[in-house]
Amino acid sequence: MADNSGFRRVPASAIRAFITDALAAAGLPQDDAAKCAMLMSEADLTGADAHGVFRLPQYVRRLKAGGFNARPNITVATLAPATALVDGDNGMGHLVMSRAAETAIALARETGVAWVGVRRSNHAGPAGLYAEMPAAAGMIGMYTAVANANHMAVWGGADPLLGTNPLAIGVPSGEGAIVLDMATTVVSYGTVKNYALQGKSMPPGWMVNTATGEDVTDAKRSAEGLLLPIGGYKGSGLAVMLGLLAGPLNRAAFGRDVVDFNADDKSETNTGHFIIALDIARFMPLDAYTAEVDRHIGELKESKRLPGVDEIRIPGDRRRECHAERTRNGVPLAPPLIAQLDKLAAELGVAPLAAR
Amino acid sequence: MADNSGFRRVPASAIRAFITDALAAAGLPQDDAAKCAMLMSEADLTGADAHGVFRLPQYVRRLKAGGFNARPNITVATLAPATALVDGDNGMGHLVMSRAAETAIALARETGVAWVGVRRSNHAGPAGLYAEMPAAAGMIGMYTAVANANHMAVWGGADPLLGTNPLAIGVPSGEGAIVLDMATTVVSYGTVKNYALQGKSMPPGWMVNTATGEDVTDAKRSAEGLLLPIGGYKGSGLAVMLGLLAGPLNRAAFGRDVVDFNADDKSETNTGHFIIALDIARFMPLDAYTAEVDRHIGELKESKRLPGVDEIRIPGDRRRECHAERTRNGVPLAPPLIAQLDKLAAELGVAPLAAR
Repeated sequence: MADNSGFRRVPASAIRAFITDALAAAGLPQDDAAKCAMLMSEADLTGADAHGVFRLPQYVRRLKAGGFNARPNITVATLAPATALVDGDNGMGHLVMSRAAETAIALARETGVAWVGVRRSNHAGPAGLYAEMPAAAGMIGMYTAVANANHMAVWGGADPLLGTNPLAIGVPSGEGAIVLDMATTVVSYGTVKNYALQGKSMPPGWMVNTATGEDVTDAKRSAEGLLLPIGGYKGSGLAVMLGLLAGPLNRAAFGRDVVDFNADDKSETNTGHFIIALDIARFMPLDAYTAEVDRHIGELKESKRLPGVDEIRIPGDRRRECHAERTRNGVPLAPPLIAQLDKLAAELGVAPLAAR
Repeated sequence: MADNSGFRRVPASAIRAFITDALAAAGLPQDDAAKCAMLMSEADLTGADAHGVFRLPQYVRRLKAGGFNARPNITVATLAPATALVDGDNGMGHLVMSRAAETAIALARETGVAWVGVRRSNHAGPAGLYAEMPAAAGMIGMYTAVANANHMAVWGGADPLLGTNPLAIGVPSGEGAIVLDMATTVVSYGTVKNYALQGKSMPPGWMVNTATGEDVTDAKRSAEGLLLPIGGYKGSGLAVMLGLLAGPLNRAAFGRDVVDFNADDKSETNTGHFIIALDIARFMPLDAYTAEVDRHIGELKESKRLPGVDEIRIPGDRRRECHAERTRNGVPLAPPLIAQLDKLAAELGVAPLAAR
């Protein structure tokens, strides 16, 4: 559970309070700051270490530089009984995507299924957060985003024209939502950044050097390479197709139009997402479905194992266990990250993590 | 384009006529036989070699053994304004899924998006066929099936509890539909069967021997191994999640309940699928969207290439080129397959391929 020595354990409540104060100091209304903090700390609890408080310094930089709109007028246009388009007015992605998920759930209650597209949004944290929202409401959730930087080439290519464009699917079960949250790359760039911050080297197969064709293993030299897709041309094709649905269909960025938000704090990213919610109750009673899901998951977990495998794990296992363990023991934060956050606290004039 | 020496080139029209006669001789009404033949020959034209006429002997065996219902009463229950459940009454999968796709397109015209689940269906050929139907109607198509045999284990497992559960996405472009059709395994079992028929050996990484953990490379010994997922735990997780949506949500088979239709000609498979159709016109004018798709695809194809790569290819390129080339020159059929089909013709008392 990533409890490397030297990491400090910080309660999620302290992280939440710190993020709230920092975002409010950076200009967000108090309620919006608290909502972002709740979702970002949830990312930390679920083990999405590259998508929680780790992102705060970058978000604050963007808010200060005018790259994010601290006081957006988020609007929802219902395009048809079961479809809507959310315009995020360049607000924090967490606020925009929460609104989109709520809209999808409300529409799906009426029509059975809903597809909500999103434009003019921003980085919204881990995809699993939003696939889980319909699942928590007794629905199927499906979510995709055009990632906020292009760290992959199309299969055979050497230009960074594709993002990690994740796919997340949430399904209710008797033990809470089962959430698959997968990048179409072997790893996310956030993971690479986390490795770089911790000075860890990457295994082969994660990134390719586009000039030499060799593996990049030094995470600090990630700028020389590009991420590799899962399944070769398949993962590349999936990133293209999901991107065409989350981006251009919503008049949002894709391909050459993507703004690298790691390199540019000022330009609007016009991030696109989409979320689907499907109301299970239209197909069968929810408890009958979750009982079937539980039976099948149980059969998978109790099935014969390959030699050397101690336990079979299915999507969401790590997420759920991590959430429980970190709720008890706190979120492990790396010393370099804590130093960054202390510096940020001083800049913003808010109490540091340690004082909470 | 798989034009190996020794292959005979057969016009798609001859294949279509042969399949129609064979299925009619096996008990299908003439119109249904023609519809299946059209879709199966389309699979052959698009290069889905393991999903076209290659499957005919097995389909006929199942029809004769009572495993397929030759005269099904396919019903559609509209569960909500944007959702429906199709009960295939154990008919040919092609007929059932065509009906589901038509239903999804019709509902999406009214509500913007539709999700149609399917139960009591059967093997329906390549996933791309059905994702393309909404795309041909100016919509986004998304399709999944629970595969008709379990040739994969859950990640870490050694029991065959998962199928190749494919995901297909269709998007309209200025040059026709762009169709991604990907198994969640590195290859489909149909491809393995085709390799076995042709006596070709498989590259490492396709299948693992569950007892030894080593690669299976002899396609004829595929029974000793299981297919491997793309991206390790990711592909496994995707197969699980897609399976829970296409199977149990429709009260269709998944996991331990899947009937291996390669080993059993008699038992009903209760195959589940789902298809989503999204009406692009609700988001923007269709031609504005296809223009954006064309621009992005062009930018991907013209981007910088890795050393040694002659051409960048995107989803659907091979499919479209293959369709054009095979329409001109005929579908290449391997001699062992032609021998099987000749034997089938004799059994059914219909004219063989060569006489058409």
